[in-house]
Amino acid sequence: MKRYESLAGDIARSIHEGLLKPGQRLPSVRQAAATRQVSPSTVFQAYYLLEARGLVQSRPRSGYYVATHARPLPLEPETASRPDGESRDVDVSELVFEVLQSAMALNVVPLGSAFPSPLLFPLDRIGRAVASAAVHLDPWSTVDDLTPGNAALRRQIALRYQMAGMDVGIDEIVITNGALEALNLCVAAVTRPGDAVLVESPCFYATLQALERNGLRAVEVQTHPRDGIDLDALEMAIARHAPRACWLMPTFHNPLGSSMPEERKRALVTLLARHAIPLIEDDVYAELHYASQRALPAKAFDREGLVMHCSSFSKSLAPGYRIGWVAAGREARKVARLKLTTTLNSNVPTQIGLAHYLERGGFDRHLRRLRATLAAQQQQYVAAIGEAFPPGTRVTRPAGGYFLWIELDHGVDAIQLQRAASQLGISIAPGPMFSASRGFRHCLRLNYGHPLDARMQAGLATLGRLAA
Amino acid sequence: MKRYESLAGDIARSIHEGLLKPGQRLPSVRQAAATRQVSPSTVFQAYYLLEARGLVQSRPRSGYYVATHARPLPLEPETASRPDGESRDVDVSELVFEVLQSAMALNVVPLGSAFPSPLLFPLDRIGRAVASAAVHLDPWSTVDDLTPGNAALRRQIALRYQMAGMDVGIDEIVITNGALEALNLCVAAVTRPGDAVLVESPCFYATLQALERNGLRAVEVQTHPRDGIDLDALEMAIARHAPRACWLMPTFHNPLGSSMPEERKRALVTLLARHAIPLIEDDVYAELHYASQRALPAKAFDREGLVMHCSSFSKSLAPGYRIGWVAAGREARKVARLKLTTTLNSNVPTQIGLAHYLERGGFDRHLRRLRATLAAQQQQYVAAIGEAFPPGTRVTRPAGGYFLWIELDHGVDAIQLQRAASQLGISIAPGPMFSASRGFRHCLRLNYGHPLDARMQAGLATLGRLAA
Repeated sequence: MKRYESLAGDIARSIHEGLLKPGQRLPSVRQAAATRQVSPSTVFQAYYLLEARGLVQSRPRSGYYVATHARPLPLEPETASRPDGESRDVDVSELVFEVLQSAMALNVVPLGSAFPSPLLFPLDRIGRAVASAAVHLDPWSTVDDLTPGNAALRRQIALRYQMAGMDVGIDEIVITNGALEALNLCVAAVTRPGDAVLVESPCFYATLQALERNGLRAVEVQTHPRDGIDLDALEMAIARHAPRACWLMPTFHNPLGSSMPEERKRALVTLLARHAIPLIEDDVYAELHYASQRALPAKAFDREGLVMHCSSFSKSLAPGYRIGWVAAGREARKVARLKLTTTLNSNVPTQIGLAHYLERGGFDRHLRRLRATLAAQQQQYVAAIGEAFPPGTRVTRPAGGYFLWIELDHGVDAIQLQRAASQLGISIAPGPMFSASRGFRHCLRLNYGHPLDARMQAGLATLGRLAA
Repeated sequence: MKRYESLAGDIARSIHEGLLKPGQRLPSVRQAAATRQVSPSTVFQAYYLLEARGLVQSRPRSGYYVATHARPLPLEPETASRPDGESRDVDVSELVFEVLQSAMALNVVPLGSAFPSPLLFPLDRIGRAVASAAVHLDPWSTVDDLTPGNAALRRQIALRYQMAGMDVGIDEIVITNGALEALNLCVAAVTRPGDAVLVESPCFYATLQALERNGLRAVEVQTHPRDGIDLDALEMAIARHAPRACWLMPTFHNPLGSSMPEERKRALVTLLARHAIPLIEDDVYAELHYASQRALPAKAFDREGLVMHCSSFSKSLAPGYRIGWVAAGREARKVARLKLTTTLNSNVPTQIGLAHYLERGGFDRHLRRLRATLAAQQQQYVAAIGEAFPPGTRVTRPAGGYFLWIELDHGVDAIQLQRAASQLGISIAPGPMFSASRGFRHCLRLNYGHPLDARMQAGLATLGRLAA
């Protein structure tokens, strides 16, 4: 994030939290530059940005003032979920498909979508890299780059782990058709029908669908909307259900946006290792962090090869190209074999093209821009939700990704809300999609991966009215 | 196949079958042209081709003579398999991987490979089509072309069905990561663990691996190496095992090369419909027919939507791009949903690029060349095997594809042969890979999809010595 964006973010927060009141004068540019120890032009840029977002107004010859309509931001959810601790068969797929179906209709306002705007990605540069790989394809690479996949791409992925301070060998990396295939291969590698699998409460609906398809039993574990899964609850669930796997999103959780502090990730890995339980770690939003440093995944603390770290380029670089991977630890060979018998291989020219793109550099430049955009959009959406939704609505502030988790009044039924919104051409993702026990009826997930234009703003306003 | 290739094929057959003896003089060009009702230049080309293959020799001012070393061709296998009729759990994957592993080592003579030479495909033209699609990608297509897949590509696939005289709607077509994913989605859609599934004896090892992975029981049904599965045996197996699905390759079977006559395909579909048993039809070699007309698949006779026709571009056009499909009949929606929860989608730019390639035309021209090449290679390989292998060896003559099925003396153990050959840098596919009951120990599958160069010839000679 650029310095002026960070400054604008701080000021926006002060406004929304009521530290700066509507109509109050902002410090002069010179004052602010001195206080913040930044250049005057950085302050100017920050004020311009806040003005563009409608949070401040300039008065000629007088300075900048907090806009009179600026309202305090909604509060964050504060209480962890309270699942009942039982294990259960999963039967959520019909509901999920009903919601996804309505979200995929043409011209729907995509607040319920799982994808950010495709315009946020350097699809022209990726296109040229893949084009060049396709045109110059060595015919034998169609055979040589068979699963586990193209060596140059696996090397680039291993390098990015190394840059993050992690020791992940190329030999444990298997290229997959997106992270979703990686996750599915992992759960198939370490479970058998009837096994119990620990998941967060709530958790990504595709996790539940995978458990349902594989005849596995879900054990939902208490999870906090900011800090992630509760380790005491996890330990109790292990003792009670003897699970064969744990499938979690410790960083930028979908749908909560929660992230476990690194020390708790380390404790998580230690706890699971003590019970020899494999961790399937879904880390697809890893690169979409707003802090300057990437948070380490649980995989970073793995000494036993028990953590299967799944990620992809679909959310960070190349949507639609379907290239993901897993660093599968001790299960790498088994995962590769499962892939060979189910989809054989991933698109070879795309693997080569992505490897070339990564070798040439530019990924990090793109990521910095993408992160700044998503961070700014989060502020805009949170503010807009604060204005559109009923008082008492709570909204998360994830440190990465592009999902907000919203807690409405307990009287609101998010599935009814979704159906009503769908009639009006607006998609949302209601809470029960994310729970084997169909909890979270008063919650929903909103996607802020699309610019907050007039259409999205109108969509939020309509939703707020429906929720009231 | 060009006219001169067809003529050369006829003459080669006469030589190998002993109708034309070593040293015997061929008809003069003028005589042959008159008898065959072709132009003299066609005869010349045919004689040149036979000379290039070492089957005939020209003597200056005297004409063409059958080469003195030309030997009769090996006979074809004539007896159908005799599986025991039991259903059984499958446990073949370790053997299959051991063999595939040794086949994938560098510089191995790829007689055991599942892939033909990648040099047989128009990878430059496909590369340009995909490159153009990648460079001009509409970002929104990454969302809009979600499973069931890109509409233009599905339309092209539906058109090819139509050209073959079949009525397959775009709505039942789901794009997949190769035919292997299509087949796996289909079996997951119509079975549950413990169900019995009817397969041919022998059958493609990936079929067995899918049954093994899904906890299904295989019922191997008597199959003839030329005409495919025996319908009486199939009916008995239905009565005895109440199978939930039938997974067959009625055309250009892997490994047998067998093809069911169309009338038997019709009877097969009728029989299965009477018992409401879905047919998973693996038809990946459909386009590799040597006859001028494409044989209709079983799907052509389906009136109930019970046939799930799986195919791909990997064997006919674009290896390494991983684009296949299924025309899934009444299960189309279920298959699409399974795909959405396992791999989400297939590579979008590749789908668009293939659609453009197919729209522009050129596929059929490429296919004619490819078929002629494979047909010619089959003759060369059969002749070479006849010379290299012990007398009594039987070899199939499939009407399409690129696999030969070889029956050795019953005393030969193909797994030992495979291990010995692997030590010498030669891969083969031993019979027991293709059988849940580990039958066919004296059989092997050889790939003739690579030109019969000196290296392949030496490989065959070594194999023949090992088998003797």
